[in-house]
Amino acid sequence: MNEAERCAEQMKNKGILIVISGFSGAGKGTLVKRLLQKYDNYALSISMTTRQPREGERDGVEYFFRDKEQFEATIAQNGLIEYACYCGNYYGTPKAYVEEQLEAGKDVILEIEIQGALKVKEQFPESLLLFVTPPSAAELERRLVGRGTESMEVIRKRLARASEESEGIEAYDYIVVNDVLDVCVDEVHHLVDAARRAPVRREAFIKEIREELKGFAKGAE
Amino acid sequence: MNEAERCAEQMKNKGILIVISGFSGAGKGTLVKRLLQKYDNYALSISMTTRQPREGERDGVEYFFRDKEQFEATIAQNGLIEYACYCGNYYGTPKAYVEEQLEAGKDVILEIEIQGALKVKEQFPESLLLFVTPPSAAELERRLVGRGTESMEVIRKRLARASEESEGIEAYDYIVVNDVLDVCVDEVHHLVDAARRAPVRREAFIKEIREELKGFAKGAE
Repeated sequence: MNEAERCAEQMKNKGILIVISGFSGAGKGTLVKRLLQKYDNYALSISMTTRQPREGERDGVEYFFRDKEQFEATIAQNGLIEYACYCGNYYGTPKAYVEEQLEAGKDVILEIEIQGALKVKEQFPESLLLFVTPPSAAELERRLVGRGTESMEVIRKRLARASEESEGIEAYDYIVVNDVLDVCVDEVHHLVDAARRAPVRREAFIKEIREELKGFAKGAE
Repeated sequence: MNEAERCAEQMKNKGILIVISGFSGAGKGTLVKRLLQKYDNYALSISMTTRQPREGERDGVEYFFRDKEQFEATIAQNGLIEYACYCGNYYGTPKAYVEEQLEAGKDVILEIEIQGALKVKEQFPESLLLFVTPPSAAELERRLVGRGTESMEVIRKRLARASEESEGIEAYDYIVVNDVLDVCVDEVHHLVDAARRAPVRREAFIKEIREELKGFAKGAE
């Protein structure tokens, strides 16, 4: 497919909602950043939060910054795909922004933990759920230790958390092993490309070829 | 993944059963031939038939040649994944051969029409169903006419058949548009590679990382 055809195809088809989860230390953040840098079909979902902006953070870029009242009004209007409360602040995924981007043909990336991922799948059954993992648990430990920023106690807690999270892997469509980052980036890109070929995401194409074939078949009668 | 790792992985994981269907004139035969030439992870399923071998055809290579009695005994033993009768001869897919190849880590290709494909999916729910189509019905007609070997009547019948077959596309995992052959070959290879990352096909990996993480989590208690 050349670039013009890809664009035409994109206009006919909605984008894919991509949910990325995985163990803390699996390298999800870097992976997503590289995907966005390397390919232009992706858009990052922007979360809504009630926490205060940090220096340099802009509304509508890093987050949609809202107060508690506004956030709860959005919940009441069913305007969030999922939300959760951490450390006394709300964090959630605004549905409208995601839907706009999908309609525009963008593949929207949502980096989120498993509970949220399952809620997304409920509301967007055609979303693509990816679970990112290092090649082994030993490698996960090595990476967490290698960061040098956390105490052994925190690292052990993260590994215990990973052990719990590993119970949910079967809910995901694909397991992505992040060994060499650039290889992993292209793997994810190929998985998204594969997903685009599922009949549920090629409805326009199927409808078109069916109608055309029906025309030919009529000619044969 | 380097070659040694790929081999080790292959020994841990069974191969994938790949069912290829599609319109007559979509280029399935050439596609399969190229896949087998270009990559060494594929094996072609060998059909069993009661028809007479043609000149140069060898038992166990082009087909397993059996007489009617032997074929029906294989049916009775539930030894065929699917079978059908064309022009007074039986044709079927021997289960044992497919299973041997899958166990050996080979990705087994089965070129078969939709009724057979659905039977395969029933018995091998983890099989990967691919539907091959030209970019459009007009292109399908062009290719059928371009062959120059068939009367317009036969071509029209094929198009009418294609129209019927198009009703079954949703049963397939992926639609593969065969426009430029070499691009299409690599697309199929990527789809198989994607399928390998589904949790159902990475059971060994999941089990291993879970156990390893459990060990770490215990250490944290």
